[in-house]
Amino acid sequence: MPDEVHKWFIEHTSPATAHMFGIVSFIKCFRTKYQQVEIADTDLFGRILILDGKIQSSEYDEYIYHEALVHPAMLMCPAPRRVLVIGGGEGATLREVFRHPAVERLVMVDLDREVVETCREYLRSWHQGSFNDTRLELIYKDAREYLENTTELFDVIISDVPEPVEVGPAVKLFTKQYFDLIKKHLADKGLLSLQAGDYGLPFIEAHSAINNTVGQVMPFVRSYRAFVPSFNTEWGFILAAPGQSELPAPDHFNGLIKERNLNLLYFDGETSAGIFSLPKDIRKKLKDETRIIDDLNLLTIF
Amino acid sequence: MPDEVHKWFIEHTSPATAHMFGIVSFIKCFRTKYQQVEIADTDLFGRILILDGKIQSSEYDEYIYHEALVHPAMLMCPAPRRVLVIGGGEGATLREVFRHPAVERLVMVDLDREVVETCREYLRSWHQGSFNDTRLELIYKDAREYLENTTELFDVIISDVPEPVEVGPAVKLFTKQYFDLIKKHLADKGLLSLQAGDYGLPFIEAHSAINNTVGQVMPFVRSYRAFVPSFNTEWGFILAAPGQSELPAPDHFNGLIKERNLNLLYFDGETSAGIFSLPKDIRKKLKDETRIIDDLNLLTIF
Amino acid sequence: MPDEVHKWFIEHTSPATAHMFGIVSFIKCFRTKYQQVEIADTDLFGRILILDGKIQSSEYDEYIYHEALVHPAMLMCPAPRRVLVIGGGEGATLREVFRHPAVERLVMVDLDREVVETCREYLRSWHQGSFNDTRLELIYKDAREYLENTTELFDVIISDVPEPVEVGPAVKLFTKQYFDLIKKHLADKGLLSLQAGDYGLPFIEAHSAINNTVGQVMPFVRSYRAFVPSFNTEWGFILAAPGQSELPAPDHFNGLIKERNLNLLYFDGETSAGIFSLPKDIRKKLKDETRIIDDLNLLTIF
Amino acid sequence: MPDEVHKWFIEHTSPATAHMFGIVSFIKCFRTKYQQVEIADTDLFGRILILDGKIQSSEYDEYIYHEALVHPAMLMCPAPRRVLVIGGGEGATLREVFRHPAVERLVMVDLDREVVETCREYLRSWHQGSFNDTRLELIYKDAREYLENTTELFDVIISDVPEPVEVGPAVKLFTKQYFDLIKKHLADKGLLSLQAGDYGLPFIEAHSAINNTVGQVMPFVRSYRAFVPSFNTEWGFILAAPGQSELPAPDHFNGLIKERNLNLLYFDGETSAGIFSLPKDIRKKLKDETRIIDDLNLLTIF
Repeated sequence: MPDEVHKWFIEHTSPATAHMFGIVSFIKCFRTKYQQVEIADTDLFGRILILDGKIQSSEYDEYIYHEALVHPAMLMCPAPRRVLVIGGGEGATLREVFRHPAVERLVMVDLDREVVETCREYLRSWHQGSFNDTRLELIYKDAREYLENTTELFDVIISDVPEPVEVGPAVKLFTKQYFDLIKKHLADKGLLSLQAGDYGLPFIEAHSAINNTVGQVMPFVRSYRAFVPSFNTEWGFILAAPGQSELPAPDHFNGLIKERNLNLLYFDGETSAGIFSLPKDIRKKLKDETRIIDDLNLLTIF
Repeated sequence: MPDEVHKWFIEHTSPATAHMFGIVSFIKCFRTKYQQVEIADTDLFGRILILDGKIQSSEYDEYIYHEALVHPAMLMCPAPRRVLVIGGGEGATLREVFRHPAVERLVMVDLDREVVETCREYLRSWHQGSFNDTRLELIYKDAREYLENTTELFDVIISDVPEPVEVGPAVKLFTKQYFDLIKKHLADKGLLSLQAGDYGLPFIEAHSAINNTVGQVMPFVRSYRAFVPSFNTEWGFILAAPGQSELPAPDHFNGLIKERNLNLLYFDGETSAGIFSLPKDIRKKLKDETRIIDDLNLLTIF
Repeated sequence: MPDEVHKWFIEHTSPATAHMFGIVSFIKCFRTKYQQVEIADTDLFGRILILDGKIQSSEYDEYIYHEALVHPAMLMCPAPRRVLVIGGGEGATLREVFRHPAVERLVMVDLDREVVETCREYLRSWHQGSFNDTRLELIYKDAREYLENTTELFDVIISDVPEPVEVGPAVKLFTKQYFDLIKKHLADKGLLSLQAGDYGLPFIEAHSAINNTVGQVMPFVRSYRAFVPSFNTEWGFILAAPGQSELPAPDHFNGLIKERNLNLLYFDGETSAGIFSLPKDIRKKLKDETRIIDDLNLLTIF
Repeated sequence: MPDEVHKWFIEHTSPATAHMFGIVSFIKCFRTKYQQVEIADTDLFGRILILDGKIQSSEYDEYIYHEALVHPAMLMCPAPRRVLVIGGGEGATLREVFRHPAVERLVMVDLDREVVETCREYLRSWHQGSFNDTRLELIYKDAREYLENTTELFDVIISDVPEPVEVGPAVKLFTKQYFDLIKKHLADKGLLSLQAGDYGLPFIEAHSAINNTVGQVMPFVRSYRAFVPSFNTEWGFILAAPGQSELPAPDHFNGLIKERNLNLLYFDGETSAGIFSLPKDIRKKLKDETRIIDDLNLLTIF
C-alpha cells in the first residue's frame, strides 16, 4: 500500500473527539521558546500551520478566517489609518488590512520571532509579501508589555492570537485586564476585532466567557462566526467598540467594499447577514453567560 | 489506563480526512438487508446513530438538524395538512412535523423496517412517541416505488434520506427523475424540503449538483445550511416549490412560529437570516454548478 | 464507503504507541463492579475479549497463550491431580488443564462473576464446555481472600489474571505477599504458572519486576514467553516451584505429551526450546532487575 | 493540551489492523524515484526509518534485526572474506558485517541513492561510519542487473531489501529467478541470509512462500525469526546454502563469537536456540506451503 496515507495530524478537541488530517509531507517540526510548531502539506487543505497541536489556518480556506476577522472592523471604521495587529504570525491578517487604502501605519506585535520568520519563509501564499510593506512596523514582544509601554492610539486593533491552551503563550490575552489595555489604545470611534475561539456548541464556553468579558469593558460587542472547513467547526469572532456603535446593513457593507475597491472572496453584505445572525440556541448560551476572565482567574481550554 | 477511551467511531470524509468519536458503549451493531447500522453512546454527543459509517444524528444536537429540515417548509405552507416524509427513520422529523397544528395526515415511507424499529426502541428522545401518533401512516417501501403507485398529493414533502454513498440505499433519491416524481405529488403551493449533503466547501460538490438538479424541476429553489456540531461541518438543505414563492422575512417567520405556538430550540427569524444568507464563495460555487443528476448518471460520494 | 472499517478498538501501550483493531461488530460493552468489558468480532482475529481497554485473548490465537500458560507446568508435574486456576475467565485455561488425564479436581477462583458468565455465553470456542466438567469447582471471590481461608494444597496453581493496571482488579495479585500465599498452597513438587505481562523490551519492566519478586519466594523460577499475534508482542510467563527443579529437555516434553495423549497445536519439545531460550538482551534485563513488588509498594502499568 | 501527541505514523498491516507511533518530530519526508521516505523521531523507539509506509528499523532495536540478519550466516562461514549486501541502506548491515575480522571486501548494491545518502546523514547511530570503511564498494544499481553482469563470487550474500509491496522497488528480489542468480554468485560453502517478511501467523504467507521458493533452489534452508519491538511482530529471516550444511549448536556459536571477539547485544548461543526453534503451528504452516514465487507470478503484500 505505498500510496496509503500513513502520516496523520490528529487534533483532539476533547479526550473523546478529534479530527484527523492525512499528511502528505511534514515540512517543518520544531519547538520555539514558546510553543510547538508544525508546517505540513495536505491533499485537501494544501499547506497548514499547527501551533501546540491546534490547526491555525490552511492554505485552502485561510481567506475565510482572515476576511471574517479583518473586514467587519475595518469597514466599520470610516478611515482606518493606524492599525495594530496582535499575533497574526502567518501574515494574512496584514494582507487583508493592507487592502484598505486608508491604512498609513500597521504595527504588528508578535511574541514569537521564530514562528513569524518561519511563516514568512513557508507560508508565502498567506502573507503575499505583506511583511515587506513599508507601512509595517513589526515588533517581537509580549502584547501586554507592548501595550503597557506605549501611548499610541489605533483606529482598529485586531487580536489574532492562539487559543488560551494551558501553558500556551496567549493565556493572558483573553482577560479583562487585557481588554482594558486594548480600550486605552483605541482612538475615538476605534474598533476591536478578536479571534475568539471555537463556536461549536459543545465547546462554546470559552467563546461565551470571552464575549462576556469584553462586554464588561466595551458597550458595543457583537459575537459572530464563520464556518472554516479545515477547522471542522464554526469559528468565533468578537467585534467591539468602546463607544456606541451599530452594525452596518448588508447593503451598506456592499457599498463600502465597492468604495474601497476591495476584491474579496468571502465577505460581503449577504455574508455579513449570515455570520452576524445567530441561531436561537447560541444566543441563549451567550445571554446566559456570567463568567468574567481575569488575570487571577484565567481561562484555559483543552 | 482503565478510563482511557479505547473504542472509536472513525468517520472518514475522504481518504485523508476523518472525525474521531470516542465511544462509551456500542449499543447495537448489525447489518440490515440495506445497510450497516450502529447505535452508540458518546460522552459529548450522547447517543448517536450511524448508517454505513456516516453519523446520521446525535441526541445532543439532532434538534438543529431536524428543526432546520422541517420548519422552513412547514412554516411557508399556510396550512400543511398532508405531509409526506421520505426516510427519517429516527422519528425526529415526525416529531417536528407533528408540532404544526394543521397536520391531519403524515405518511412516512422508509425502505428499512429494521432501522425504523431499532430507532423506535433505542432513540426514544428522538421520536418521543411520534410513531404512535394516530395521524401517521408508516409504509416500508422504496420511495420511488411508493410515489409511482400513488396519486395522493401532499402540502409538504420532506426527503430525509442518507447520503448517496455507493451501493447505499438512497442513490436513486437524488436524481432528476426523483424530483419530477416529487413534483407530481405536491399540492398547489406545496413545498419540498430536502436533506442535501455536506455543505463544507471541500465536499460541497454533491450539494451543488443536487441543488442544480432540483432547479431543473422547480422554479423556486433555496439552498441553506445549518452547522451541526456532531457532523463537524455545516449541513446542506434545499427548500423548493413547483410554483413561484418567496422566503419570508425573519419577522414573518417569528410571527408564524408564535401563531402556531411552536416551542423551538434552534429555528426562529434570526436563525433563518443566518442559515439562508450564504457566503460569497459558496454562492459562486452554487451558481457555477452545471451538473444534473440523472438515473443514468448517478452521483455517489465517498 | 459502506465497506470501510469505521469501528476501532485502539489499545494504547503508552501515550505514544497503540494497536488498532478494526471491529466488525461490538457484541457486548458493559462495566461490571470491577472492570470495563467488551466482546467484539474482528476480521483477522475473530472474536476478542477486552478488559479495561486491554485485549485478553482472541479466538484466532488464544491457543498460543493458553497452551504456553498451562502445559509447561502441567507436564513438569508427574501427576497433576489437584489444580487451582486463579482468574482465567474465558475458560480456555480450564480447557487446557482438563486435557491432562490425571486431573481429579480443578478449583477456579475468579473475582468477577459477570465476566465469567459473559465468557460462558459468548466465548464458547474458548471454554468448549469446560465449565460443565464435573471436576470443576468455580468460586467467585478475590483470590487473596480465597487463599487466606483455605488449607487445601494443589499440585499446580495457574495465575491467569489481567495486568496490574491502576485501579484494576488484579493489582494485588502480583506482589510478594501473593506469591508467599501461593507457595503455602503448593503441594510437594507443586508448580506455579503465571501470566506475567508484556515481554516486549520497551515494556518488560513489569515482567522483570514480577520475575524478580517470584524469585524472592521460590528457588526455581523460569521466565519464558510466546509471541501472540493479536497482542502485537511477545507475552511473558513465569514457571516457578518452591523446591529445586529443572526444565525438561525438548525430547522429554515430547515424550510426556505422547504419554498423556495431548493433542496440542502450539506446544511441543521444539516449541519449548524456542520459548525458554531467551535472547541475550532480555537475559541481561532480567538479571539486572532488583525491584520487589510488595503490597505496600504496588506495581501498576499504563 | 500542548504536550499531547498530535503527529502519528499509522502503519497498516491490513485494512483492519495497524500500529500507531506517536511522532515527536518528522525530520525528513520525501519521495525518491523509487519510494516514499520518512525519517522521524519517537519517544519510545528513538529515530525511525519508514519506506513506503512501513517501518524499516528503529534506533532503539535495530541491533536485534541486524544482528539476527547478519551473524548466523557470517558465523557459519569459516572465513567470510568477500561479502555482498543487497539493499541495507541504513548501513547497519554493513556495520555488523565489518565486525568479522576475515572480511576483506564488501560490495553493497542498493537501488536508491537518495535513501542511502539520507541514511548516511541522518542515521549515524545505525552505520557508525561503516560507509567510510575502505573495504566497501558501494554500487547504486538494481540488484538483478548487478548480479547478471558480474562473475564475482561471495562467501556470504545478505539480501536486506524492503518487503515486496505492490509497485515497490523490491518485488523482483523475492523470486526463484533471483535466488537462482544469488546461488550462482555464492562461493563454495557460501551462505545466503535473507530478510524474509512478517512472521506473525496472520501474515506469514509471504514468508512461507519465500521460504518454499528458496528451498527450490538450495538444499539447506532454515527459517528463523526475531521479535523486534518496533515492528510489533516477530520478523522472519531465511538462512540458506547451495550445499549441505548444518546449524551449529549453541555452544559452537558461543565459541565462534568468542574466537572472532564479537561484542554483540542480541545474538549468542542461547539466542540462536530461541530463534531457530520454531513453534509447532508455524512449522506446520511452513511444511504445508507449496507456492513458488516466480518472475511471472510475483508475490506482493498489503
